[in-house]
Amino acid sequence: MSRTILIIGIGAGNPEHITVQAINALNRADVLLIPTKGEEKSFLADMRRDICERYLTNGDTRVHDYAVPKRRADGSYDDGVQDWHHAIAKIYEELILEVSTDREVIGLLVWGDPMLYDSTIRIVDHVRANGRVAFDLEVIPGITSIQALCASQQIALNRIGLPVEITTGRRLSAGWPEGVDDVVVMLDGVEAFRSIEDRDAQIYWGAYLGTELEVTLSGRLGDVAEQISETRHQAREKNGWIMDTYLIRRARATESET
Amino acid sequence: MSRTILIIGIGAGNPEHITVQAINALNRADVLLIPTKGEEKSFLADMRRDICERYLTNGDTRVHDYAVPKRRADGSYDDGVQDWHHAIAKIYEELILEVSTDREVIGLLVWGDPMLYDSTIRIVDHVRANGRVAFDLEVIPGITSIQALCASQQIALNRIGLPVEITTGRRLSAGWPEGVDDVVVMLDGVEAFRSIEDRDAQIYWGAYLGTELEVTLSGRLGDVAEQISETRHQAREKNGWIMDTYLIRRARATESET
Ligand SMILES: C[S@@+](CC[C@H](N)C(=O)[O-])C[C@H]1O[C@@H](n2cnc3c(N)ncnc32)[C@H](O)[C@@H]1O
Ligand SMILES: C[S@@+](CC[C@H](N)C(=O)[O-])C[C@H]1O[C@@H](n2cnc3c(N)ncnc32)[C@H](O)[C@@H]1O
Repeated sequence: MSRTILIIGIGAGNPEHITVQAINALNRADVLLIPTKGEEKSFLADMRRDICERYLTNGDTRVHDYAVPKRRADGSYDDGVQDWHHAIAKIYEELILEVSTDREVIGLLVWGDPMLYDSTIRIVDHVRANGRVAFDLEVIPGITSIQALCASQQIALNRIGLPVEITTGRRLSAGWPEGVDDVVVMLDGVEAFRSIEDRDAQIYWGAYLGTELEVTLSGRLGDVAEQISETRHQAREKNGWIMDTYLIRRARATESET
Repeated sequence: MSRTILIIGIGAGNPEHITVQAINALNRADVLLIPTKGEEKSFLADMRRDICERYLTNGDTRVHDYAVPKRRADGSYDDGVQDWHHAIAKIYEELILEVSTDREVIGLLVWGDPMLYDSTIRIVDHVRANGRVAFDLEVIPGITSIQALCASQQIALNRIGLPVEITTGRRLSAGWPEGVDDVVVMLDGVEAFRSIEDRDAQIYWGAYLGTELEVTLSGRLGDVAEQISETRHQAREKNGWIMDTYLIRRARATESET
């Protein structure tokens, strides 16, 4: 008999995006670990607590906040990311040993879906590799910010039979990805959409998706890029932080392969 | 006052992948429209009915099955797809007028998430453009088969800071997409993974994800491709149909942009 770790996707902002499987997982857990990233991200910690208040009906479940080490403020990736993961793995290891016995179920709440630009699965793999704590693992998907964006904008991600690339602002700012005309951008601290040459492309943008702060804009890139940029700055100023995602769809440049 | 159409993502096989928002939408609807694709797809219609049985508590909601026109059996896209969409738009239009009054709420159940390789949003846009029925629209996301795959395989979709492309079997069979080393493949009637030159790539494959028929395989492409192919054939033989999705991750060929 060993511990069980549940990595639970809770959706990216709308508490009603939680799944029945995630609700059941929350209630199976003996301990829930809620990351707090200090600073402006306390909004996100509040959202996680709101989810527990709404859906946690198991009165025996213990809820533990823990501080995660800080990363670069722009949320982009850097060479220190591996160190950062190992640091978090150590924190998880300590926490797990501290807050749970070896037959208990530990739930880790993850923003959106754990599969999408999130390292919880990798970090938990590090914990396993360290060999100090044995556990079974279950991963529970959650609605991502991309899905919240498409639902809010009432659009399909893909055009009929065409591919789509999911990438980061950092990468898009280095140039339009080859071979695709539909690109979803996350983790954009640099407003990469401003550097896209094709001003006739369509952009579908959303910030704070699913939350009461949600704001969306869409249109021809050349027409709305400035407005998006201003909206971003004002919102970040006002709220102290911002999370945004967008899809850019340009006229088909790649040859048809039908 | 006009009708409301709810396009409701119900997840891709696991009934517990439904969200609270989707459950609420099912129960807000005066009429639920359940597509039946005849043939082997009756399993999917059964899944949709199972979802209604589990989560529909509003005794006044009417549930209507309707037959959708047949597409090519391999599920791939062809030039007739536009005609097909317009044919379905006509069917929706008729159905909506037939089964609902002009203040009612109509729910359309969609497999997985309506944003991902699904044309319900586009078809409903056609219905609106036709101008015979006026309605408000809401889109409710659902867990996709990609998320079910990653959760089941306990993997992240993206490597740290790297992009991923979502594409079709038909396109992958024409060659590895440029600029990415991580590719998710859907709608693969041709076993495109067999034609990948890099036999050292990792493949994470899953069929009937989330259902009681779920089967997954993973490993070095060169080691498991044949096994996946055999498993696919046997399963399709036995069940009369198959739905599968996979992620292929190859060693990084593209230059780092960090
Ligand atoms: C570290 S990633 C985590 C993604 C998350 N796992 C998901 O499934 O959406 C953080 C990025 O996700 C996007 N994001 C997350 N939540 C968002 C929201 N509510 N609105 C807009 N973008 C969001 C932003 O691009 C942000 O930079
Ligand atoms: C027309 S697309 C619809 C995708 C759906 N909207 C979603 O969100 O997953 C159908 C394709 O989705 C994939 N798929 C859907 N459900 C699946 C399941 N339960 N297991 C494996 N693949 C599935 C297969 O690649 C299939 O060819």
